[in-house]
Amino acid sequence: MTSSKLRLGVAGLGRAFTLMLPTLANDTRIQLVAATDPQPLACAQFERDFGIACDPNFEALCANPKVQAIYIATPHQLHAAQVEMAAAHGKHVMVEKPMALTLDECTRMIEATARAGVVLMVGHSHSFNAPILKAHQLIQSGAFGRVRMIHALNYTDFLYRPRRPEELDTRAGGGVIFSQAAHQIDIVRLLGGGCVNSVMAHTGAWDAARPTEGAYSALLGFEGGAFASMSYNGYGHFDSDRWMDGIGELGQTKNWAEHGIARKRLMNASTASDEATLKASRNYGAAQWSGSLALPPNAQHQHFGPIIVSCDHADLRPTPQGVWIDGDFDVKLDALEPPPLPRSEVIDELYNAIVHSKPVLHSGIWARATTAVSLAILNSAQSGQIQIPTHQMPPAY
Amino acid sequence: MTSSKLRLGVAGLGRAFTLMLPTLANDTRIQLVAATDPQPLACAQFERDFGIACDPNFEALCANPKVQAIYIATPHQLHAAQVEMAAAHGKHVMVEKPMALTLDECTRMIEATARAGVVLMVGHSHSFNAPILKAHQLIQSGAFGRVRMIHALNYTDFLYRPRRPEELDTRAGGGVIFSQAAHQIDIVRLLGGGCVNSVMAHTGAWDAARPTEGAYSALLGFEGGAFASMSYNGYGHFDSDRWMDGIGELGQTKNWAEHGIARKRLMNASTASDEATLKASRNYGAAQWSGSLALPPNAQHQHFGPIIVSCDHADLRPTPQGVWIDGDFDVKLDALEPPPLPRSEVIDELYNAIVHSKPVLHSGIWARATTAVSLAILNSAQSGQIQIPTHQMPPAY
Ligand SMILES: NC(=O)c1ccc[n+]([C@@H]2O[C@H](COP(=O)([O-])OP(=O)(O)OC[C@H]3O[C@@H](n4cnc5c(N)ncnc54)[C@H](O)[C@@H]3O)[C@@H](O)[C@H]2O)c1
Ligand SMILES: NC(=O)c1ccc[n+]([C@@H]2O[C@H](COP(=O)([O-])OP(=O)(O)OC[C@H]3O[C@@H](n4cnc5c(N)ncnc54)[C@H](O)[C@@H]3O)[C@@H](O)[C@H]2O)c1
Repeated sequence: MTSSKLRLGVAGLGRAFTLMLPTLANDTRIQLVAATDPQPLACAQFERDFGIACDPNFEALCANPKVQAIYIATPHQLHAAQVEMAAAHGKHVMVEKPMALTLDECTRMIEATARAGVVLMVGHSHSFNAPILKAHQLIQSGAFGRVRMIHALNYTDFLYRPRRPEELDTRAGGGVIFSQAAHQIDIVRLLGGGCVNSVMAHTGAWDAARPTEGAYSALLGFEGGAFASMSYNGYGHFDSDRWMDGIGELGQTKNWAEHGIARKRLMNASTASDEATLKASRNYGAAQWSGSLALPPNAQHQHFGPIIVSCDHADLRPTPQGVWIDGDFDVKLDALEPPPLPRSEVIDELYNAIVHSKPVLHSGIWARATTAVSLAILNSAQSGQIQIPTHQMPPAY
Repeated sequence: MTSSKLRLGVAGLGRAFTLMLPTLANDTRIQLVAATDPQPLACAQFERDFGIACDPNFEALCANPKVQAIYIATPHQLHAAQVEMAAAHGKHVMVEKPMALTLDECTRMIEATARAGVVLMVGHSHSFNAPILKAHQLIQSGAFGRVRMIHALNYTDFLYRPRRPEELDTRAGGGVIFSQAAHQIDIVRLLGGGCVNSVMAHTGAWDAARPTEGAYSALLGFEGGAFASMSYNGYGHFDSDRWMDGIGELGQTKNWAEHGIARKRLMNASTASDEATLKASRNYGAAQWSGSLALPPNAQHQHFGPIIVSCDHADLRPTPQGVWIDGDFDVKLDALEPPPLPRSEVIDELYNAIVHSKPVLHSGIWARATTAVSLAILNSAQSGQIQIPTHQMPPAY
């Protein structure tokens, strides 16, 4: 253990953790020093993988003097209380998206971490992806004029992946507005200037067996006059990775023969509890866990569906290869090297904030503004009215 | 001349006419019998091509006893008065989109043709395209459940094609809402059930040298709960034909090396009158006219950008090859034969209406409903408020 490594504890060794696992295991700036999860299989796997005891008690993790920062990857509804407890123990926090279920919870998290003088970062979200950050830099360079219009869409099989019951209940944070709009809004806000001043949306929940939102279309207005159109559809039919050169969300080459596989797998789970078991069975350390600490081979940059940012003199399109610049007179790719490590951008920001006291882009106040837009989408769809989200702010840099 | 041919007179031998020309010259159901245009070069070309005198007087065309029906392809602002005059002379009418600039004009056109007992059809619009009509049939078959959500986008260089002054002045019918939304709304209404009950929109007019709308994003709500997101951007940067297998609006294979060519050509026109001359110089019979009566080689079906229609059990995507059906468990193409003739669907509908008294899908009342949505987009963008368009109706079949 060298002093320059960030000593990280993990709370929640589920699906989100497994997506961060290759990063956490291979990024040399990170040292995993502790974990907590009530699932014995996940705990046992952690102990095998890292040779470190995993304690089912979250507060014990917070109190552990070896831990500098905690990555909270537990279900949404636990985020607020866990961040508050971590802060009370003086630990820095990275909490998964969505930050929380209400703006009051977000505010409590912001205040608790501010009081404790610890870093609060919300992520991973796909607005950390290098091509998105590159597009943000290109916009800020001023070379293409002002951002005028953003178009974002993503068609996936989100709704048919195995779920815990609360993930299918909007009141408990279920559905695509809480889980998926959090990515898309974060991206669109970053590229559009951050301050949304109107939201109009329609949502869809058209599978009675999974009665939460599986789709939405929203229009956002920004301070300064730019606007964004965002659409998401998680019903597992069209796959918009076809418009991302066949590269999936995680940077992997898509296998089109797997169309419908999520729906097929789900047919084996007839009750909510069967389904939760199915989800758990594929998680870290469980019977069907097939992941590893190894880096995925040949992965390209991660993405969250097609995004077109129309500026005065070019449309910018972040893709797994970099940023396409469709300009007044030519089309070129501002290519990015393939990622050294998936999601290393998340560690860049966390590490720099904690170790080098750099400002955080994905701060608590930033993510609260994103949450406000998520809630505005739900409220607009329910009321049929335009909503004006509160707590908006521009990116910190 | 056999009695089964439809004897058509043309008013306005400009750009729209040249797009219909291969159809009108080659569809055996049509016989061109007269034309009118104040432009001597266009008239002369018509006389050369068809051996028929072209009279600059529109009323003379209306009075011509050889003429059964008139294709009105003049600038928007002339449509209403010309349809009224044609009807007063007992002629059937096909009038170009947009039907007119106001709902009052639309109503006058509907009433005049109804009084005269003649057919009123509005088109061509891209909702006539065979893949769109096929998608409409697939929806009506009920095989995929209800339509829930529609996503339509189109990114083109529309704003940089050479224009007459009124085409760059919204009050005179200029900009993409009048000229391009007319296509997209017609498609989306046809597939979404026709009855729009809410419109929220943002529009963009961000080139001060061309101060009309070049872009918009709109959200439509439909009776029955479906919703649609429509976006259009005519600023000549990203080209969404990249997401249509590289096939352009007219069914042609795109030449990507021509990126920016519209902007480049326009640099030679420094005044509005230069630009109008540039537009006219490429029209029928003019110096740079390079078209012909011949059918375009290897053309595929025409389209108006990517469209995704999400139903309960499949997303339907009309493309130049047919309709892609991304279903619960498989993906397949409901392939269409390449079109025998471009836009022959327009003649199908016109001919069947006039010769066989079949109902018209693209009737006056249908197109008035589309115009109402166009105006609602403009009003919503200007007021920042949701608009409820009037005169909505389902498709006739
Ligand atoms: N950024 C991403 O790409 C991404 C992907 C998936 C999930 N997520 C987010 O991660 C969070 C977790 O979702 P998931 O899909 O991983 O769920 P999951 O059910 O797969 O994992 C949750 C884990 O938390 C554990 N847990 C439950 N209560 C706990 C407690 N009190 N203390 C410690 N651990 C506890 C569970 O046993 C489980 O292992 C959600 O907020 C979700 O939005 C983010
Ligand atoms: N459906 C399509 O694909 C399509 C494409 C282009 C245009 N359009 C529509 O067609 C209409 C014409 O647009 P355009 O681009 O062809 O314009 P244009 O300027 O190229 O052509 C208009 C023609 O009408 C002639 N004209 C003017 N006044 C006339 C009159 N009183 N009587 C007869 N002719 C007259 C002009 O001389 C000119 O030749 C518009 O409403 C436009 O929206 C449709």
